[in-house]
Amino acid sequence: MTNPATPEFLDRLRAGLPEGRVRVPEKRYLEEPRGRFAGQAAAVVMPGSTEEVAATVRMAAEAGVGIVPYGGGTGLVGGQISPDAPAPIIVSLERMSAIRGVWPEENVLIAEAGAIVAHIQEAAEAVGRLFPLSYGAEGTARIGGALAVNSGGVNVLRYGNARELCLGIEAVLPDGRILHGLRRLRKDNTGYDIRNLIIGAEGTLGIITAASLRLFPRPARIGTALFAVRDPAAALSLLARARDRVGEGVTAFELLSGTGLGFLDEVGMGLRQPFDPIPEWVLLIDLGLPPSLDPDAELEAIFTEGFEAGEVTDGLIAQSGQQRADFWRLREAVPEANRKIGAVASHDVSLPLSAIPAFLRRAEAALLALAPLRINAFGHLGDGNVHYNVYPPKGVRARDLGDLRERVSDTVHDLIHEMDGSFSAEHGVGRLKVHDLELYGDPVRLDLMRQIKDLLDPKGIMNPGAVLRPRQ
Amino acid sequence: MTNPATPEFLDRLRAGLPEGRVRVPEKRYLEEPRGRFAGQAAAVVMPGSTEEVAATVRMAAEAGVGIVPYGGGTGLVGGQISPDAPAPIIVSLERMSAIRGVWPEENVLIAEAGAIVAHIQEAAEAVGRLFPLSYGAEGTARIGGALAVNSGGVNVLRYGNARELCLGIEAVLPDGRILHGLRRLRKDNTGYDIRNLIIGAEGTLGIITAASLRLFPRPARIGTALFAVRDPAAALSLLARARDRVGEGVTAFELLSGTGLGFLDEVGMGLRQPFDPIPEWVLLIDLGLPPSLDPDAELEAIFTEGFEAGEVTDGLIAQSGQQRADFWRLREAVPEANRKIGAVASHDVSLPLSAIPAFLRRAEAALLALAPLRINAFGHLGDGNVHYNVYPPKGVRARDLGDLRERVSDTVHDLIHEMDGSFSAEHGVGRLKVHDLELYGDPVRLDLMRQIKDLLDPKGIMNPGAVLRPRQ
Repeated sequence: MTNPATPEFLDRLRAGLPEGRVRVPEKRYLEEPRGRFAGQAAAVVMPGSTEEVAATVRMAAEAGVGIVPYGGGTGLVGGQISPDAPAPIIVSLERMSAIRGVWPEENVLIAEAGAIVAHIQEAAEAVGRLFPLSYGAEGTARIGGALAVNSGGVNVLRYGNARELCLGIEAVLPDGRILHGLRRLRKDNTGYDIRNLIIGAEGTLGIITAASLRLFPRPARIGTALFAVRDPAAALSLLARARDRVGEGVTAFELLSGTGLGFLDEVGMGLRQPFDPIPEWVLLIDLGLPPSLDPDAELEAIFTEGFEAGEVTDGLIAQSGQQRADFWRLREAVPEANRKIGAVASHDVSLPLSAIPAFLRRAEAALLALAPLRINAFGHLGDGNVHYNVYPPKGVRARDLGDLRERVSDTVHDLIHEMDGSFSAEHGVGRLKVHDLELYGDPVRLDLMRQIKDLLDPKGIMNPGAVLRPRQ
Repeated sequence: MTNPATPEFLDRLRAGLPEGRVRVPEKRYLEEPRGRFAGQAAAVVMPGSTEEVAATVRMAAEAGVGIVPYGGGTGLVGGQISPDAPAPIIVSLERMSAIRGVWPEENVLIAEAGAIVAHIQEAAEAVGRLFPLSYGAEGTARIGGALAVNSGGVNVLRYGNARELCLGIEAVLPDGRILHGLRRLRKDNTGYDIRNLIIGAEGTLGIITAASLRLFPRPARIGTALFAVRDPAAALSLLARARDRVGEGVTAFELLSGTGLGFLDEVGMGLRQPFDPIPEWVLLIDLGLPPSLDPDAELEAIFTEGFEAGEVTDGLIAQSGQQRADFWRLREAVPEANRKIGAVASHDVSLPLSAIPAFLRRAEAALLALAPLRINAFGHLGDGNVHYNVYPPKGVRARDLGDLRERVSDTVHDLIHEMDGSFSAEHGVGRLKVHDLELYGDPVRLDLMRQIKDLLDPKGIMNPGAVLRPRQ
C-alpha cells in the first residue's frame, strides 16, 4: 500500500525540481481512450532530464508515494491511469522528447522516452532510413510507453515488436538509481538481460527515459493490395505463398472482416467499399521490396497462385500512392467505426498461426449461443494476432444487452487459453487484465514476476495496480 | 559457497532417478575447447526428462550442491566447466535431444535442450523451412547451451541472435520448479519477460530444458561472393550498398583479414587462396533471395558499384555449389588455423558499426607498441562483431613471449570500453570474463544482476562462478 501525496511531499517535490515541473493534473491525464477507468492523481510531474526523473523517483520512494509513468496516454488497458486511492503522482515524460542522436550508417537512433513514435519515424526518414514501429496511435504515442508495453502494430511480421527494435535503454529504477544502457551494439552477451525485463513491464519496474533504437534500410519499392479471400485458412495459405515469393518483403499482412467493412457504412465513415458485395474476409497486404523487384508483378503472381488454388476470389492492387493510402485508410478506419458502434467486449488475442481458423469458428459458435452478437475479428494475421471484438445486433446498443461483457470475455479468453493462445497479444496487461493474468498465467512465472517486483520495488510505488495486484 | 557432493548425496541422487542416470564423469566433461580451465565434477547426471532435471535440481538445492548445466561443451569462455572446489555435479542435457514438434505452416519447431543445433537445422530443412542459427560448432553444440549463452554466428545480421530465434522456453529453476513457457506465439504481452532473463544467463538462473523456436522460409536462390576490399571502412560502405540493393537478403557479411588468410598457408591447411597476392581485407558475402531475384546479378551490381567507388579491388562470385562451399571453407578454416598458430590472446568484441575502422587502427597501434605481434581480426562485420585475435611473430610461440596475455587483453578491452563496445559480443561471460564484467559493466546493472541471482538462487548452486563471482 502506497502513501498519500501529502502537501508536504508535494512541496518537497517542487523544491527539489526546477520551477514549473510539478503541476495540477489536467483532465486528459485522468482519462484513457476506452473510458473504462477514471484516474486519480495528486500532481503531474514533468521532468526535463533523466536526473530530474531520478530525483522525482527518489523523493517518491522515500515517501512511499505511488508513481504512474505517463507517455502519450494511448494505452488501451489502463496502464497509464490509476483509479485507486491513495492518488499517486503522474510522471509524464512529454518534455523529454529529444532525438539524442542518429547514426544512419549504423542504422541506429537514440531517442528520449517522450519522443513521439511518428517523430522518430520522421527523423529516420530524414536520413533515408526506416523506423518500422507503426500503429494507429503513432501520432500521439511516445516511445517510452511503446517500449513499456512492447507495442506491436502493422509491421511486426517483418520487423518485430517494439522489444526487437530496441538495442538498449536508459531507465530510472524504483529506488531512483539510473540504469545506463544506451548501447549501439547488435551483440552484447555480458550478463543478464535487464533491458528486456524493464521493456514490457508497463512501468512497474522503473521508468524508461531513453532508448537506443534499430533503424532499417527503406524498401525501395512498395506495393499494396486488397485481396478478398475464401476464409481465414485460405488467408494463411496466402501468407505462406507471399513469403515464399518475397521472403521478408511481406511487410504487413492484415485481416479485415466483412462485418468490420460493413461497420464503415453503418456509421457513415464516407469511405468507398473496395468490393461489391462486401466479402466475408479481406486481406490488406503491403510488400516492401528491393529495387530489382516489381511489387505489382509479385502481388499479381501471388493473386494468380491464390486464385488458382481457390483461396482468393477477388483482388485490387493499388495503382498510385493515393490508392495505397485509401486502402490503408479502410484498415485504419475500422477501430474508429468500432468505437461508434460500441462494443460489448473487445479482445486482443494471439494464437499459434494454424489455430486461428478453428478459433474463429469455435468462438463464434460459443458467442452466438449467448446472444445474437456480431463479431468483428481483424488485425495482424501474419503475427497470429486478432483483435476479436464483439458487438450487439444492428440497432441495439451494447448497454441494452445487459451485462454481457464479462460472460463474453470469459468465453473468448477461456477458449484462447485452451488453444494455447494469449489474452494479450500487444496491448499489455495494464489494470484491465490483471485478473486474466492471475487466471491464465503459468503459476511459476507469476510467482517469479511477483518476487522480481518485490525485489526491485519493495514499497510497490511504481505504477501500483498495473500488471500485478498491489500488496495490501 | 556450495557444499561438497557427499557419497550420501550421490546415493540419494541415484535412488531418486532411474538406473544409469548418475555416472562417473568422463574426461571430456572436464575439458573445454581452449584448454584454459580444468574442470572438477563429483558426477555427471544425464536426465531423460524435464521431471528428472527438476528432481535432480531439487535434491541438489536441498543439499546445497553446485550444478553445472552441460550442453555440447563447445563454449569458449568456460561456462560449462568448474575448476573450483567443492566439485559440483554436471547435469548434461544430452539424453533430452528430441524434436517435440514441427509446425511448418507456423514456422515453429519445439526442441528439447539437448537437441544438436545442426539436427534442428535438418529437421527444419526436412519440412522446407530454415532454422538459421549457424556457427562453427553447430554439429556439436546443443540448443539449450546455445540459448544459455545467446549464441550468434554467421546469420545474425538477417535473423538475429539465438534470443531472437526463441519464442518460449521450458526451464527448471534453481529451486527445482518447472517454468512452462513453450508457446508458439509471435506476440504475447502478458507480464515480465522471464524468458529473456533465463536466456543468456549461462545456466546461472536455471536450466533450459526445451525451447520453442522460430523457423523461416528458405530463401529460394543463394549467391556467395568473396570481395577484396580496400579497408574496413570500405567494407562497411559495401554493406550499406548490399542492403540497399537486397534488403534483408544479405544473410552473411563476414570479414577475413589477410593475416588470417595467410595463416591458412602458414599452417598448411591445403586450401587454395582465392586472390594472389593475398589482399589485406576480404569479405565473404552470402545473399539469400526470392525466386524472382538473381543473386549473381545482384552481387555483380554490388561489385560494380563498389569498384567504381574504389571500395572493392577484386572479386569472385561462386559459380557452383562446390565453389560456394570452398569459399565458406576458407572462413571456417580460419579458427582452425588460429588454434594451430597459437594465440597470445583472443577477443570476441563488438562495437558500434561506424567505430570499427578506428578501433582496428587504434588497437593495432597500441598492441604493436607492446610487442611485434600479429593481429587476425575477422568475423561478423555486419553485426559489428570482430574476433580480435593476437599472435606472436612468425616462428615465435606465444609462450615464448612471456606473459603478455593479460596486457594484450587489457589493452584491447580498455579501448573497446572507451569506444562504447562490448568485451563479449557472442561468447558470453562464462568464467573467463567475470573480471571484465566487474570492471566494465554498468554498476547499477551489475547490482541488479546480483540481486536477481540471489533472489532466484539464494544458495548459489546454479553454475557457481559463472557470470558472477560466487558469494563467499
